[in-house]
Amino acid sequence: MKIKDLEEMNRESMISCGFQATNVGRAIEIVEKMKKENATVFLTFTSNMIASGLRGIVKEMCRKKLVDVIITAGGSLDHDLIKSSKKYELGDFVMDDAKLHKSGKNRIGNILVPNECYEYLEGFMREVFTEMYETEKIIAPSEIASKIGEKTKEDSFLYWCSKNKIPVFSPGITDSAIGLQAHFFKQSKKDFAIDVTKDMGKLSQISLNADKTGGIVLGGGISKHHAIGVNLLRGGFDYAVYVTTASPWDGSLSGARTNEGISWGKIKENANHVTVDCDASIAFPIIMNEFLGE
Amino acid sequence: MKIKDLEEMNRESMISCGFQATNVGRAIEIVEKMKKENATVFLTFTSNMIASGLRGIVKEMCRKKLVDVIITAGGSLDHDLIKSSKKYELGDFVMDDAKLHKSGKNRIGNILVPNECYEYLEGFMREVFTEMYETEKIIAPSEIASKIGEKTKEDSFLYWCSKNKIPVFSPGITDSAIGLQAHFFKQSKKDFAIDVTKDMGKLSQISLNADKTGGIVLGGGISKHHAIGVNLLRGGFDYAVYVTTASPWDGSLSGARTNEGISWGKIKENANHVTVDCDASIAFPIIMNEFLGE
Amino acid sequence: MKIKDLEEMNRESMISCGFQATNVGRAIEIVEKMKKENATVFLTFTSNMIASGLRGIVKEMCRKKLVDVIITAGGSLDHDLIKSSKKYELGDFVMDDAKLHKSGKNRIGNILVPNECYEYLEGFMREVFTEMYETEKIIAPSEIASKIGEKTKEDSFLYWCSKNKIPVFSPGITDSAIGLQAHFFKQSKKDFAIDVTKDMGKLSQISLNADKTGGIVLGGGISKHHAIGVNLLRGGFDYAVYVTTASPWDGSLSGARTNEGISWGKIKENANHVTVDCDASIAFPIIMNEFLGE
Amino acid sequence: MKIKDLEEMNRESMISCGFQATNVGRAIEIVEKMKKENATVFLTFTSNMIASGLRGIVKEMCRKKLVDVIITAGGSLDHDLIKSSKKYELGDFVMDDAKLHKSGKNRIGNILVPNECYEYLEGFMREVFTEMYETEKIIAPSEIASKIGEKTKEDSFLYWCSKNKIPVFSPGITDSAIGLQAHFFKQSKKDFAIDVTKDMGKLSQISLNADKTGGIVLGGGISKHHAIGVNLLRGGFDYAVYVTTASPWDGSLSGARTNEGISWGKIKENANHVTVDCDASIAFPIIMNEFLGE
Repeated sequence: MKIKDLEEMNRESMISCGFQATNVGRAIEIVEKMKKENATVFLTFTSNMIASGLRGIVKEMCRKKLVDVIITAGGSLDHDLIKSSKKYELGDFVMDDAKLHKSGKNRIGNILVPNECYEYLEGFMREVFTEMYETEKIIAPSEIASKIGEKTKEDSFLYWCSKNKIPVFSPGITDSAIGLQAHFFKQSKKDFAIDVTKDMGKLSQISLNADKTGGIVLGGGISKHHAIGVNLLRGGFDYAVYVTTASPWDGSLSGARTNEGISWGKIKENANHVTVDCDASIAFPIIMNEFLGE
Repeated sequence: MKIKDLEEMNRESMISCGFQATNVGRAIEIVEKMKKENATVFLTFTSNMIASGLRGIVKEMCRKKLVDVIITAGGSLDHDLIKSSKKYELGDFVMDDAKLHKSGKNRIGNILVPNECYEYLEGFMREVFTEMYETEKIIAPSEIASKIGEKTKEDSFLYWCSKNKIPVFSPGITDSAIGLQAHFFKQSKKDFAIDVTKDMGKLSQISLNADKTGGIVLGGGISKHHAIGVNLLRGGFDYAVYVTTASPWDGSLSGARTNEGISWGKIKENANHVTVDCDASIAFPIIMNEFLGE
Repeated sequence: MKIKDLEEMNRESMISCGFQATNVGRAIEIVEKMKKENATVFLTFTSNMIASGLRGIVKEMCRKKLVDVIITAGGSLDHDLIKSSKKYELGDFVMDDAKLHKSGKNRIGNILVPNECYEYLEGFMREVFTEMYETEKIIAPSEIASKIGEKTKEDSFLYWCSKNKIPVFSPGITDSAIGLQAHFFKQSKKDFAIDVTKDMGKLSQISLNADKTGGIVLGGGISKHHAIGVNLLRGGFDYAVYVTTASPWDGSLSGARTNEGISWGKIKENANHVTVDCDASIAFPIIMNEFLGE
Repeated sequence: MKIKDLEEMNRESMISCGFQATNVGRAIEIVEKMKKENATVFLTFTSNMIASGLRGIVKEMCRKKLVDVIITAGGSLDHDLIKSSKKYELGDFVMDDAKLHKSGKNRIGNILVPNECYEYLEGFMREVFTEMYETEKIIAPSEIASKIGEKTKEDSFLYWCSKNKIPVFSPGITDSAIGLQAHFFKQSKKDFAIDVTKDMGKLSQISLNADKTGGIVLGGGISKHHAIGVNLLRGGFDYAVYVTTASPWDGSLSGARTNEGISWGKIKENANHVTVDCDASIAFPIIMNEFLGE
């Protein structure tokens, strides 16, 4: 293929541009193939993305059933629950953090989370755990996500996941504000437990039963690894799109390109795959743009 | 302070060098203060570091009781257990990953893990879970880590943690080969569970009871966040050293500098803190060098 | 300002998204102000960008007179001249480079430049230098750029710069294929010279005479520094947009944010400025999109 | 080779550690081979490195004749000249840049350059150009570097280069404070010129006449490209060590790994080469340590 000069921003012109524009264009192609082949789509993301406006795209994907499984950090559940009722503020990457602390604003890059947001979450989660505990003392992260979705407002990706039966897995859920509430809840209910092995059967069945699977992996961490790990059970993803800002040169999972996954059998040798080296807040909306417009 | 020309590599000359050399020098100073002030030291790292030779430094820190609490990914337990008996191989960051897959070598950056390593882990973990289940059906990640340490060889950081009563927390433990074995074990023992809320009481008590706390945070992910999250309960770390290759400009927790933690109260406003922007395989040995030589 | 969920990709929704999407949105705002205030616009870029499809945007900016001064590496002149007649090919970031070498393909990231491209350049530049030498033995880089523009085809940013009297400065011009041809030419014409001080008067006059100046700085290197350096003479840029993938933590000029420029007086204290942390092949087309349409 | 646990920091233990520690160890091996094979050693670096304490190592390499050719940015000459008489200060990566500007401190990452430093340079360079102009009106960058070395103090790498006949090339020299002085000087001496083609014969002869060549390339930019470009004339470097923080995924020359150079013939197909992904302020002292001792 020849390098062509960019005249407008569309899939073909991006593919022929070179550098990461090429990879954004390829990512669009691969997502289209996932859809066309009816692949079971795994979407994973780190929690900062839900603190940002990317939450709108995730929510829309869940509403339109463009995704079949979500794996994410506990913080994503925190932010989605809070933002369905409260607002975060735009700040700056460089601010006086001691002053922010004094004024009760918590910084995530250039986004500020006011302290009162977490008060809302506390009340909400107390109810969630109380209700769940009445039925079942040992619960799974995906059950918590589902319960939040049932109880929260429409402006929430968890709401749409519950409504559309899209399971949301969060293997590291205690590492979050929700996890902290679980800890407080347990102090009065000693036999309350979050059993993380409980979700593994459900998740592995999805992987094993799927005809084809596709991964849209935003950022790294436990969510990324869990998605490729469970796809190992079936011989790997058939389609994979990674969007990352992390470097592979330190051997980190977060920076690992799709190629590395092939050595493990987490991505198939003949898979369609691409790694887009870009902040997801820029690349992900471009990639999903043509699938979200109706 | 004036910039001085580097004449030899020691703490003072690094501090006065500028750029990241300055931050490595400051990290040494801060670790020294942690020790002098008898701070409770939290060490966190991602699993790739245990796949690498950095395992030797972690092990030595545990043997010499230079660390009080470890928080890490499930994969770190995998690699430590395996490497106490098996060898990994040096590869390259760019290899034919399909060929590696066919030959049963799994790539982590420039490190290769032969498939048979995981067979060893499977047998070992079956025994671990069987023995633990006899006593207690609902177990915590730190109990698994401790049990592995009791049963494995001396050439292991988990061995020294068990021996020296250093708790090892792993809130995302199911996302690992050990987690997969837990899943297999549960298929015959339905009431077996890994309750991740169980560790939170223990971990929060350590944070609340400490006079001063210090964090040595290598890489990002759930381990980093969990350490700063639990220190929020006490008003933040008194000392913090981050070593990272991740960028803060995407709002990721992994790339967040120590400053960001201050806005949250995860690091104290008056803390001694530094972020070293470097691959831990280079920076961490330099930082720990003077504390490990006796 | 509140964080809003992304619903479509436009300036407002990007600004309220958080992370780098915010900075892309702000970059659009700042470029609009440059235009509205009739600022003298300096555009700088590294040569790889002209090897890519971004050449189309640069060319269009020159055709539409959206830029007043260009400062770039010698390689940009190479690629623009060649690509007005020859095609580059799309490759991959990881290829067998020894095999590429044997087959006469030179790799720039995921772009391949066939050897014959440089043969075209050699013949063309011999003519350029021969003609120029007849008039003047000591020439300046901007004169070379202008001469190439006069002689090459319409499908070239240099063509439009010559036509629209947009000066193209290249202070490091000998570091390029064109520089190599200059070296060969000089072997028979000993008094032929490229005097880089010759352009400094012209460039400094542009800076000093401008009412307001704006910088659009893609990537780093000598082009970036030269643009901010010459703006120092007038007290700094009034508007500045940097697009970069480089890190500031190593003290490099390439990674330096706009803020650092303020300390030097290279950007005004009250300037409108933003640093977009993104591959220009993705961010630059989005930023320029609304100014190039119709 | 097997991965071994790090016990102490030496070449062997670093090589067997994995990740970038491995590459630091390999870099030491390759520099040793350069020496053993008596290769002509090209050292290139960006100017920020001379603003930092790395200047001490460069100076020592020149004093001990461990380097045969230097290619660097004009700013390196600025900083070396100034620092042989004045001191820079240690600052921080995040400071109030408007306040710094008001107080006359110019920031380079976490290094501060007081304004008066440049006044010293102005006086010095006026003399340099006046003296040089008396002999020759059209001068080359390497001649300027050599003249500065003759006139400045012993505490300077340029001093040792002049003394030890190590040529210092700076193809983009006008992009510097020295370049600005050249511009001022030219206003009264219209026939004064800096001819950048003049150095190309000298530099290409070094490349062509060398039996073997080795490159130690710190950072990117014009210095890096010029070194590999001139080695193209001889079929490429025999040995190459790159130390960089830049990413290859944007197709930039600064982020290009040694592999990419092979496709161009800038590095030989059978060369010994390694790219160390690290801030040079940390990696370069480790690499050079054993060659500078005694």
